[in-house]
Amino acid sequence: MRTRFLLALCLCAGATARAQDKKMLGYTDNEAASQQQLEARFDQQLSSSHIGETIKTLSSRPHHISSAGGKAVAEDILQRFKSYGWDAEIVTYQVLFPTPKERVLEMTSPTTYKALLKEPALKEDATSGQEGQLPTYNAWSADGDVSAPLVFVNYGLPEDYEYLERAGIDVRGKIVIAKYGRSWRGIKPKVAQEHGAIGCIIYSDPKDDGYFNGDVYPQGAFKNEYGVQRGSVMDMVIYPGDPLTPNIGATANAKRLDRLQAPNLLKIPVLPISYHDAAPLLKALDGPVAPEAWRGALPFTYHIGPGKAKVHLKLSFDWQIRPCHNVIAKLKGTEEPDQWVVRGNHHDAWVNGASDPISGLAALLEEAKAIGQLSKEGFKPRRTLVYCAWDGEEPGLLGSTEWAEDHAAELQEKAVVYINSDGNGRGFLGASGSHALETLVNQVARDITDPQTNVSILARRQASDVLKAATTRQKKEKLSRQGINISAMGSGSDYSSFLQHLGVPSLDFGFSGEDAGGEYHSIYDSYDDYVRFKDPTFSYGVALSKTAGHTVLRIANSVVLPFDFRKLYETVNGYVSELTELATDLRETTALENQLVKENKYQLVTDTAKHLLPPAAKAPVPYIDFSPLQNALAGLDSITQAISSNKQLAGNPALNKIRYQAEQQLLNEKGLPSRAWYKHTLYAPGFYTGYGVKTVPGVREAIEQRRWTEAAEQIDAVAAAINRLTKYLQPLSGR
Amino acid sequence: MRTRFLLALCLCAGATARAQDKKMLGYTDNEAASQQQLEARFDQQLSSSHIGETIKTLSSRPHHISSAGGKAVAEDILQRFKSYGWDAEIVTYQVLFPTPKERVLEMTSPTTYKALLKEPALKEDATSGQEGQLPTYNAWSADGDVSAPLVFVNYGLPEDYEYLERAGIDVRGKIVIAKYGRSWRGIKPKVAQEHGAIGCIIYSDPKDDGYFNGDVYPQGAFKNEYGVQRGSVMDMVIYPGDPLTPNIGATANAKRLDRLQAPNLLKIPVLPISYHDAAPLLKALDGPVAPEAWRGALPFTYHIGPGKAKVHLKLSFDWQIRPCHNVIAKLKGTEEPDQWVVRGNHHDAWVNGASDPISGLAALLEEAKAIGQLSKEGFKPRRTLVYCAWDGEEPGLLGSTEWAEDHAAELQEKAVVYINSDGNGRGFLGASGSHALETLVNQVARDITDPQTNVSILARRQASDVLKAATTRQKKEKLSRQGINISAMGSGSDYSSFLQHLGVPSLDFGFSGEDAGGEYHSIYDSYDDYVRFKDPTFSYGVALSKTAGHTVLRIANSVVLPFDFRKLYETVNGYVSELTELATDLRETTALENQLVKENKYQLVTDTAKHLLPPAAKAPVPYIDFSPLQNALAGLDSITQAISSNKQLAGNPALNKIRYQAEQQLLNEKGLPSRAWYKHTLYAPGFYTGYGVKTVPGVREAIEQRRWTEAAEQIDAVAAAINRLTKYLQPLSGR
Repeated sequence: MRTRFLLALCLCAGATARAQDKKMLGYTDNEAASQQQLEARFDQQLSSSHIGETIKTLSSRPHHISSAGGKAVAEDILQRFKSYGWDAEIVTYQVLFPTPKERVLEMTSPTTYKALLKEPALKEDATSGQEGQLPTYNAWSADGDVSAPLVFVNYGLPEDYEYLERAGIDVRGKIVIAKYGRSWRGIKPKVAQEHGAIGCIIYSDPKDDGYFNGDVYPQGAFKNEYGVQRGSVMDMVIYPGDPLTPNIGATANAKRLDRLQAPNLLKIPVLPISYHDAAPLLKALDGPVAPEAWRGALPFTYHIGPGKAKVHLKLSFDWQIRPCHNVIAKLKGTEEPDQWVVRGNHHDAWVNGASDPISGLAALLEEAKAIGQLSKEGFKPRRTLVYCAWDGEEPGLLGSTEWAEDHAAELQEKAVVYINSDGNGRGFLGASGSHALETLVNQVARDITDPQTNVSILARRQASDVLKAATTRQKKEKLSRQGINISAMGSGSDYSSFLQHLGVPSLDFGFSGEDAGGEYHSIYDSYDDYVRFKDPTFSYGVALSKTAGHTVLRIANSVVLPFDFRKLYETVNGYVSELTELATDLRETTALENQLVKENKYQLVTDTAKHLLPPAAKAPVPYIDFSPLQNALAGLDSITQAISSNKQLAGNPALNKIRYQAEQQLLNEKGLPSRAWYKHTLYAPGFYTGYGVKTVPGVREAIEQRRWTEAAEQIDAVAAAINRLTKYLQPLSGR
Repeated sequence: MRTRFLLALCLCAGATARAQDKKMLGYTDNEAASQQQLEARFDQQLSSSHIGETIKTLSSRPHHISSAGGKAVAEDILQRFKSYGWDAEIVTYQVLFPTPKERVLEMTSPTTYKALLKEPALKEDATSGQEGQLPTYNAWSADGDVSAPLVFVNYGLPEDYEYLERAGIDVRGKIVIAKYGRSWRGIKPKVAQEHGAIGCIIYSDPKDDGYFNGDVYPQGAFKNEYGVQRGSVMDMVIYPGDPLTPNIGATANAKRLDRLQAPNLLKIPVLPISYHDAAPLLKALDGPVAPEAWRGALPFTYHIGPGKAKVHLKLSFDWQIRPCHNVIAKLKGTEEPDQWVVRGNHHDAWVNGASDPISGLAALLEEAKAIGQLSKEGFKPRRTLVYCAWDGEEPGLLGSTEWAEDHAAELQEKAVVYINSDGNGRGFLGASGSHALETLVNQVARDITDPQTNVSILARRQASDVLKAATTRQKKEKLSRQGINISAMGSGSDYSSFLQHLGVPSLDFGFSGEDAGGEYHSIYDSYDDYVRFKDPTFSYGVALSKTAGHTVLRIANSVVLPFDFRKLYETVNGYVSELTELATDLRETTALENQLVKENKYQLVTDTAKHLLPPAAKAPVPYIDFSPLQNALAGLDSITQAISSNKQLAGNPALNKIRYQAEQQLLNEKGLPSRAWYKHTLYAPGFYTGYGVKTVPGVREAIEQRRWTEAAEQIDAVAAAINRLTKYLQPLSGR
């Protein structure tokens, strides 16, 4: 039944697609035909079973940064690259990395409970009982020994503290407990600290990450009561990498900040715990019942506190400078050796990391193996390939950031693109990055077959976009689209330095959506877990190798680099429309809310038994002048139309450097307000979302945080960047 | 702080409101002034402490229909009416009412568990351990002794079975377990039976009714693990009242149906249980994990089954004909004794029923006491007042339905209005009913002060409507309104016969919103619960007495009856707009979904590990001819405009009978398709919602259930009713 269905799909999809849809941006028809043959040969070298073996081998021991296992993994990778015929080396930086010395969490009132802070070994998971595991902790927590009443703060986001204020609850001098989710974890202690809390506990609620979602490990894939999400709480939205060496490579002799002065490190202790450890603490809370949206899936009524429940949190760390071993492999280009196609995935894990990061790294290594084989058979890329396995990604993108900072000028000169991955699973193509590469991504995805459905990975992803759309109208809109939109990049993986600090055009790929589970950053992210719940046949490992590998090869071999600036224009135009709507909505909502406050509607409606204050009135939102941005966009519209219609210049390889350095025009050398490391005017991780992107971040965050002068300044800065780009692109237009 | 705030509000609200807003529909300015004096004297007679005493007395023993306690309550009420100077009697009908003989629920595989089926007495609740309580059961369950695999069916609604079909799960020959909520409980076994299930268990999930919502009884108001919601599962949407005597009064000698032929009784056994009893059963289920929207707050993964979990359900009942004692009290009108203002609230409870129904009944009795006192002081109403305390409401509106059926012709001739209540609590005014009375309700609510905030109950409810609105636009729209819209009546209380069977204009009042809890239909609906969590000062009891009492008095004393048919037109016009949008949405959504199915989008996106079939394609939705309805509305628009602008006829009391009998023109003598008892063309309980209203039900349900021929027939039937009304109203317009 399944087979017949797939065949039928395959035939009809094939018939309509073949005629017109095989164009390859940057390639003549002849060049495209031979490139496709190359890709077919590349694909023949890929082996799902070899990917599985790689995952098993590289996840066989705990291998966090600076561990013996980590060193061994780096050396294993080095040998693999060499055996594939690449010119490879280990490039080591010296970075700060704290490991736990002491971890104590106990409830001292109204009853006592001492948290286990330990994930048990399971007989169903062969590596779960190994020596050398990092204990459950949040890297970059401050040392601390605090005792205080406990307050539940939901996800610990700014809006949660607005509610607490309405409820008359002050966290100053308290220890807060926040749920994992809704933001990057590092936001939670940062916002807690901003509000005066003296300690922060983060736990995985079974509603978000546990039995509510499905059967728990080892019966099923989801988080069992003892599972803990480790992770960094460095304030990466200020800058990532070694906190002591912002903007420069953490070489042995680099000038370092005093740790206590590093602006992206917390002042309060933070600890992640399981829901087994969180339950007694939460159950002991009194005070008001938490609002409905705050409640999780533990079997009792969620209260906010503070009250009788008091906890003692004691943490200390070993703050050492440690080695960070990146593995860098090169295959020199024949025609343009000084134009680099950079590809990367990290190799360090919190523990065994079969999924995160090894499943992505295994696909990368499989690409390197295949390209190495093609190379042995005579193929040489037109441009130089640089394949990287990063160390220290987990604590804060340490390896990639230090390497990128160390090679900043060279990368801005040579790097045509950076292509990232970071783990992989069964499901749908995820793609994010520079929007001038959106057409390329669509063409690559169009030509790769999904392992389960036999349609293209593009068609499968498009079908998902359609079904996920909320309304009939949105479904129709998605259905009428030719391709997919790639997402904008926030942070949380190694592309940040390349795109957001250096302006290197970047992409990130990975498959997911049918690989849900609770293993993330726990000891259960193991090979045993991976083969049961992530990508049992490793066929999506092959799909990732194809996706990233074809992209690498198309960029590396194209005579004319496959950038499509029209897509960039369309995307930015969409962002600016969003921003004008955001400002209008905020103005109207603020006016309405102020009226409701003034007319006492909140007091009239609030249950007098709940003692909830009305929201504070806010300053009216002014009309904002978006015209500098709109005028800049008109210029970009015009020039990108001219480029699209000028076929002659569009085929001129002499202009390639303009094509790949165009992204750098979008950098603002001053950086974003209060976080100068982030220089891209279009893409940044959100100041209060963390991993989650804010597009046109300078303008968007100024509006969201109601800083009107800054919004106007940032509109000018972004408009200047767009105007710079427009002018820079002029040679491509023939004007 | 609170005091100063209230004073400020009071002053400014008073200043703007006083000038223009004291008009009283149906009254000249002079008449209005003296009516207001009367209302002020009425208010002075109301005593919150006396309401509290009444609640305590009448809820002091279990008093379900046909119990000794029930008889005693009826006699107590009779004596109260008599002591207040009313002409009162007990009017008894003979109705079928089943009580449990045997109740067994046990899991037999994969482990064993015998359900407790018992709510424990609590020391904090003085009446919770009394003799004479009805055990936990669903009245009108069939007798049965069944053993079968268990299947979890979410809320047990038609859409849940659509999902089960996609998951390949068939409930034929199975016992289903459904959550309380989202529909009236009787829908769940009905739909289960339609799908071939042989038994049905209904449980209260702590997500909907338990610790998720707040602290549980007796610490807090919410349902503890042992609490059970009793209740009727008669298929009341076919007809309510004694199932053996549809359309006629259940007098001793009435012709009765054979019980097994009664079309509104189930064929399968049904039992309500606590979450303590449900948890082992649900936890034992295997099969697919339930979709996210199905999952509750019990601390494990919800599965659907069927599989190893098997249960045995054995129920038998004592199917006796029993007495049903309504108490009917009259105060004869001076000018129009044959025009009746009818007011009612039931007196029977599932157990003690302090909230449901006694808190509403106590307000009604307080009104009768106050009017009796005014009567002793010389006041006589212009029209006859008929105050009713109904028996047997809980099992299926037995007392009110039998009385209404028994007096159908007299009520259609004399009843100007029926004003219902059914319990009461702290919070916001709820008002539903005939939309020609919407203006009256607004004017009554405008003149009553909310006990907590000191603004009018109208202003407080309006503020709530504003804050509850989802979007800025909807908030603004609500804010710009002059008054509130009253809701349309579904079912679930004693107004059904009056409005939906006889076309007597009806209203239902009650306060709620700050009285949430889990006592409903359990032994914990007690005085001890009421004074802690419902209306501790009984001030909302007084507010209900004022609301219903003023409404009674304004209708009873008005020279010209206060109907505003313009509001009726506006409301129906809104319903017809909804229906045209519903048809358009359904047509577009169906076309789109069919396209998605045809193009295999669901197969492409469905996780192959989940084995979920795509939805079935549906027949295309045709364009529907709404013009008969639209033309009828144009006529009603024109006539109601003419009535509103004709001040002379508007003041003509000779036309009063047209005013109150106008509602009868909206009856369709054929009744709704497959449920002829329901004759109103605008309001009915939904066939698959139960209590929840369906407006313009013949048309709406035909569209929702995709019966296009029936939709066209019903459009004609409703248009005919509206045309009848338009013609009937003509004398009021002067045309």
